[in-house]
Amino acid sequence: METSISITSEEFSERVDKLLGKVIDDGLSGAVIFDSHYILYYTGFAFIPTERPIAFVMNSSGEMGLFVPRLEVEHAQSNSLIQRVDHYLEYPYKPHPTSVLKDMLLDMGITGQIGVDHDGYPWILGYRGPDLSELMESRTAKLTGFIEDQMMIKSKAELALIRESVKWGHLAHVLLQRYTEVGATETEVSQLASQEANQTMLDTIGPIYRAQSPFSDGAGAGYRGQIGRNAAIPHALANNIVFMEGDILVTGAGAPVWGYNSELERTMIIGSANDHQKHMFEHMVALQDIAMSAILPGVKCADIDKAARAYYEANNLMNYWKHHVGHAIGLRYHEAPFLDIGDQTVIQPGMVFTVEPGLYSPELGGFRHSDTVAVNEEGNEILTYYPRDLESLTIPV
Amino acid sequence: METSISITSEEFSERVDKLLGKVIDDGLSGAVIFDSHYILYYTGFAFIPTERPIAFVMNSSGEMGLFVPRLEVEHAQSNSLIQRVDHYLEYPYKPHPTSVLKDMLLDMGITGQIGVDHDGYPWILGYRGPDLSELMESRTAKLTGFIEDQMMIKSKAELALIRESVKWGHLAHVLLQRYTEVGATETEVSQLASQEANQTMLDTIGPIYRAQSPFSDGAGAGYRGQIGRNAAIPHALANNIVFMEGDILVTGAGAPVWGYNSELERTMIIGSANDHQKHMFEHMVALQDIAMSAILPGVKCADIDKAARAYYEANNLMNYWKHHVGHAIGLRYHEAPFLDIGDQTVIQPGMVFTVEPGLYSPELGGFRHSDTVAVNEEGNEILTYYPRDLESLTIPV
Repeated sequence: METSISITSEEFSERVDKLLGKVIDDGLSGAVIFDSHYILYYTGFAFIPTERPIAFVMNSSGEMGLFVPRLEVEHAQSNSLIQRVDHYLEYPYKPHPTSVLKDMLLDMGITGQIGVDHDGYPWILGYRGPDLSELMESRTAKLTGFIEDQMMIKSKAELALIRESVKWGHLAHVLLQRYTEVGATETEVSQLASQEANQTMLDTIGPIYRAQSPFSDGAGAGYRGQIGRNAAIPHALANNIVFMEGDILVTGAGAPVWGYNSELERTMIIGSANDHQKHMFEHMVALQDIAMSAILPGVKCADIDKAARAYYEANNLMNYWKHHVGHAIGLRYHEAPFLDIGDQTVIQPGMVFTVEPGLYSPELGGFRHSDTVAVNEEGNEILTYYPRDLESLTIPV
Repeated sequence: METSISITSEEFSERVDKLLGKVIDDGLSGAVIFDSHYILYYTGFAFIPTERPIAFVMNSSGEMGLFVPRLEVEHAQSNSLIQRVDHYLEYPYKPHPTSVLKDMLLDMGITGQIGVDHDGYPWILGYRGPDLSELMESRTAKLTGFIEDQMMIKSKAELALIRESVKWGHLAHVLLQRYTEVGATETEVSQLASQEANQTMLDTIGPIYRAQSPFSDGAGAGYRGQIGRNAAIPHALANNIVFMEGDILVTGAGAPVWGYNSELERTMIIGSANDHQKHMFEHMVALQDIAMSAILPGVKCADIDKAARAYYEANNLMNYWKHHVGHAIGLRYHEAPFLDIGDQTVIQPGMVFTVEPGLYSPELGGFRHSDTVAVNEEGNEILTYYPRDLESLTIPV
């Protein structure tokens, strides 16, 4: 399906042409790609990885194929970019499914040094099978770095999908904030907000919408257990906590749109903040301002993190530091490059980052906003537009 | 947290003792495990894998450690099984986080041949790093097969968690069926049923419940786009389809309970089935009966699939065949072994399988039930108890 908001087949062709250029430049016989996000990126073929191996294959003449289980044949054949679909009946089966892959690669002339993202299908969900180098008695060369570098730069169409994602994450967050109150539980509030936002999104753009994401089926917002003192443990798994006055809440909201993600996170407080909480909140917003203004084309990723670190240090906040400023985002909710002192990547127009420096105190909880920021020729644009100030983020008691 | 329904620390100790036995028997210097499900299995440490590498480490004296980012230190330290937690500050950072892992392994005496599940942390979500063999200038030996074999046999406590999962999947499915009607959309019905089932589960067992799953936050049921003619494409990604009379629906329901999963799927029909639909439905139920009665200790997995194949062939149904009879289930929603003609694993008490032979017709749609079946000394027990007959699964019009 090609709609007004999906990636066009021309754009998919441009993407694979770049990969083909790499294959030719490096003297490879072809490329064999197993990662589901890479396959989605190059072909638009969306699937959830299981123990049944799947691969996207291209030879040095640019002929493309998908290697799939019987179960996915019709789905694969509906892809207009792909000239051939080779399938095996089932996994594990007899002979092993990779015998079909071997025949396919031999038939396509992919027999010398082969470009791969991973040397064979990864052993997930009980899958066991040979490395590709072993299967083909060939040498493999990693294309992962090249692919990651290519995916870092978002096209206009990709940016449009991320902008669309921002809208529905915003709605989910508005509802999350609206329904949060003392005595309610995080789960009921998250589910209510997510259900309503998702239903509204589908009512609004359903016929031209696909989630295409293993991470989420639609728009949503929630708390991930980061409530009150637990807010100091980022990425904690969710429990069903009852909201109380004085809780510091760290939220998260988003929506996959044709596979593309945005990120919106806010620190909210139930009732009036005390002076300690205000102090931390204001420092957190200041850190975000510093990072946002430092994101410019030509600057290194590391420098954004350094600018934030300088503020942490100047204000004696390193005790509250736990992680770098942010990461790129796109078809995956985290991706490279990272706004981290160890990442020397030069920032370029088309990159999209989350900006989310945090402060974590065992006594007070966690303080973190996350916004999604797109780099352009002039500087950057903050794609998310949810209020960031304490007053707007205070839940009345 | 240890509760009446979680795995006890004694059981975790027994699990790692078995792994230690393997390390010693194979003359390895230790084990380095990266897979999040394997780490959950051995230690109870639950996390969602990101670009920040995490590993569970054990040396040949049985000393255990976790290698984590700063972000996960408190979470890791709360694990009573683990003697040491070594952390790096951030990824990618300087020096690379794996320098901390290297020091940790050297300090623990893990320097000779090292048992691993994967040669280095997998390159996911933008992570790039060395293979472990490269990092340690050592040889690695794959422990994956051993670990998979160990995880195949469920203990009484694991079975109890799967039984608990069955209950809440059942509730979600009852509500899904109740709310399905002509004119409603799959998304609204799925969300309503899932929200209500999940809320009820948390009201009932919330204080002793953790999901501990990257796949799902709680109880749920849905359609995954398998509606009407689309039902013939298993695993299709969800669209927001409006229910119509005559639709064949393939459902799915479950709930992760301390990481453990069950599977319940049903074929339902809106309004009266025509003769063709009845014919397919009855064959599907017959296939499931055959498979269920063939699952016995001492029989090979392949033989269950062969018994089903014989029925497909005898009744001229191979045109409607798409996949094997089922798979094991536990901490992952699919795992080895597989009820597949290529799987020579001998069925043993403690194994838990889904039984889900299907029939798929481009004209009629898909027909598949899935039940969760536990093998015992005498034969097997069907853990799911949702009605399987057509009358019970007909949605009134």
